[in-house]
Amino acid sequence: MRNQVNMRRHNLCTLVRHLHLAGALSRSSLTMSMGLNRSTIADLVGEVELLGLARQQLPEPRGHSAAGRPSVGVTTTDHAYVLAVDIRVSGLTVARVGLGGVVLATAGRPSPPGHDPRDTVDAIGDLARAVVRAAPEDSALVGVGVSVPGIVARDGGIIRLAPNLEWHDLALAQMLADALGTSTPPVLGNEADHGALAELLRGAGRRVSDLVYLSGEVGVGAGLIAGGRPVTGMSGFAGEIGHLPFGDGTRPCHCGAVGCWETEIGAAAIADAVGCPPDRLADVGGHLQRLDGPPTQLASVGRQLGRGLAGLVNLLNPQLIVLGGYLGPLYRWVETDVRAEMAARSLRIPEMTPRIAMPGLADRSVLIGASEVAFRALLDDPVGCLAAAPRTGDLFGVAQRPAVT
Amino acid sequence: MRNQVNMRRHNLCTLVRHLHLAGALSRSSLTMSMGLNRSTIADLVGEVELLGLARQQLPEPRGHSAAGRPSVGVTTTDHAYVLAVDIRVSGLTVARVGLGGVVLATAGRPSPPGHDPRDTVDAIGDLARAVVRAAPEDSALVGVGVSVPGIVARDGGIIRLAPNLEWHDLALAQMLADALGTSTPPVLGNEADHGALAELLRGAGRRVSDLVYLSGEVGVGAGLIAGGRPVTGMSGFAGEIGHLPFGDGTRPCHCGAVGCWETEIGAAAIADAVGCPPDRLADVGGHLQRLDGPPTQLASVGRQLGRGLAGLVNLLNPQLIVLGGYLGPLYRWVETDVRAEMAARSLRIPEMTPRIAMPGLADRSVLIGASEVAFRALLDDPVGCLAAAPRTGDLFGVAQRPAVT
Ligand SMILES: [Zn+2]
Ligand SMILES: [Zn+2]
Repeated sequence: MRNQVNMRRHNLCTLVRHLHLAGALSRSSLTMSMGLNRSTIADLVGEVELLGLARQQLPEPRGHSAAGRPSVGVTTTDHAYVLAVDIRVSGLTVARVGLGGVVLATAGRPSPPGHDPRDTVDAIGDLARAVVRAAPEDSALVGVGVSVPGIVARDGGIIRLAPNLEWHDLALAQMLADALGTSTPPVLGNEADHGALAELLRGAGRRVSDLVYLSGEVGVGAGLIAGGRPVTGMSGFAGEIGHLPFGDGTRPCHCGAVGCWETEIGAAAIADAVGCPPDRLADVGGHLQRLDGPPTQLASVGRQLGRGLAGLVNLLNPQLIVLGGYLGPLYRWVETDVRAEMAARSLRIPEMTPRIAMPGLADRSVLIGASEVAFRALLDDPVGCLAAAPRTGDLFGVAQRPAVT
Repeated sequence: MRNQVNMRRHNLCTLVRHLHLAGALSRSSLTMSMGLNRSTIADLVGEVELLGLARQQLPEPRGHSAAGRPSVGVTTTDHAYVLAVDIRVSGLTVARVGLGGVVLATAGRPSPPGHDPRDTVDAIGDLARAVVRAAPEDSALVGVGVSVPGIVARDGGIIRLAPNLEWHDLALAQMLADALGTSTPPVLGNEADHGALAELLRGAGRRVSDLVYLSGEVGVGAGLIAGGRPVTGMSGFAGEIGHLPFGDGTRPCHCGAVGCWETEIGAAAIADAVGCPPDRLADVGGHLQRLDGPPTQLASVGRQLGRGLAGLVNLLNPQLIVLGGYLGPLYRWVETDVRAEMAARSLRIPEMTPRIAMPGLADRSVLIGASEVAFRALLDDPVGCLAAAPRTGDLFGVAQRPAVT
């Protein structure tokens, strides 16, 4: 009996995961992928519908399954949602994201002056209020995920170091929980790690198990996926690729070392090469997109990019490298230089050559990745998480809504 | 019924895995770690004993379990064994290894001139005959694992490139299967990958989930473990760390690039620094051990070692770095230089600092790793693998043994 309850709970989790990954599925494809019989799937889908997480649709007249029988469609709803927060040097974005990775609403603004932590948290609170405004009163906030361009202590909710925000040992998760009035603390993570996760699940890496997501914002970071799983390292700090000694050893880096890769392909180096004003570093990607053609100085940046990518290939043998942030627009101008340098510096084994791609989720990889980590609590325990989740009508203080009399 | 058979088979596998990892366990500790009741464990142990894979011992008079009751001890036997083959530039080693990672016999010899593949395979055959000579006639050869200093195609049994042996696209698994007369082809792997696996399971990394095993033979390679699992990359080629552009960019590497890390910390660079004759490269570790003190030129090698280790730390955040081959003796002379360079080049976050250790299995890490991959077939299916395995008495042609008349 106890085992049957556990099995049913396990199957419910699996079904919600399938739906979340796909957004919409037919009951017959769920039957096949979960290896359960049709009546069990029908029961489980009914339970998910009762929870409000999905709805069933009668089959379209033309929609027939492989067996020739029309199958009932199952689509996720926006009843349960997460808030995804993307903190960048240049600006803040908050999104309300539903199951299936559906972005239901977004709001953004420039970062507060000096990235003051208090002001940043207040600004995120304002953006959060804006994106939940149109949500149904009884819909449920099931999690908050936050991406930061920095090093986040595993499970601690503490930002150990975000050099370009000048944050050290900042207890951001607690500050945000207080501001948003959520009982469960937000899940913090590194922006490149979140980008990698989102590209793996929903972007350019959907059929890939070994990928590197390279993030070019102001600094350069990497999110690593090996064998289908994120590489975190012992304390969750893996991926600080901007500080690998790939450079020629002469330029000082803000981290205290010399010759870091970031000194060659970071925003400052690129701004230098393309004549972007130093106070517009955070917009170096836009500047690259607006160029009529590549200035000659960009070729050496391309070679440095290729040099580091060759190193990554030799060490990690990824199938796919996704170029996030300004690295996408940069690559468009210097692809030949990058490819030449990679060919010269990688081992000469054809099957080691990875695909290089732009993010499948465009500039939303990091935001979607933050939503994925926020959804974990729901995916681990749909019933318990929903029961504990605050309803939209109760969020951010009742004073904002007309009192019920 | 079918489910019960599957469950019993699953439990049998799990029990054999536990025994293999530990070598010897009490029945009461198996009961605890497997979460099954005592009579089920007694049945399973009885089955493993019938298969010949373990034997039970009456408790010692003083040996009491935590509950105060004496518990029956279970110890692996040498009935099933694998052959582990370690191919190095300087020499060949073959070991007969039993469950529990017990080295039952070893034999070694220098490599044949020019590393001729045919001669190498013949020499391995001779060594294999030597190590099985004392094995019981009815003991079973359940697998062969082979470590190679090169790049091995995943699942293919083909060595794509072993630069220091001058092997390209060599179908070594098939050649060895023919020479040894085994029906199941040997499992090939990169020596650093095998070293990492062995150190994780039985060496310095037993309580670690993120480690890097650095191998210094003639070239420099790495075996990576992240989250407790080997990082292989898309085609199994991850870990070619010797060819990362950590060098100062002036020394040409045999791979065709310049500035590879191997040009700075490879055997040739060290031989140069310590005055080891260039024809004794494969013994550079022994040469380092025989030094009375470090020559001044070694300090810069130490700084280059530290530079690359800092890069590894920033990228992978390992808890432990194991220095295999000559890197251990090298580190003893240059630890201060390495540590200083790592401190200057790693991000200044104390919990990123990894432990640096010598291999817990001394010079047998790679050999033990080869035995681990060879044991996988038995661990996946003890009954089926044993039934199909050749008996020692039938190996290598019956002519070697007195004919039964
Ligand atoms: Zn740096
Ligand atoms: Zn090289």
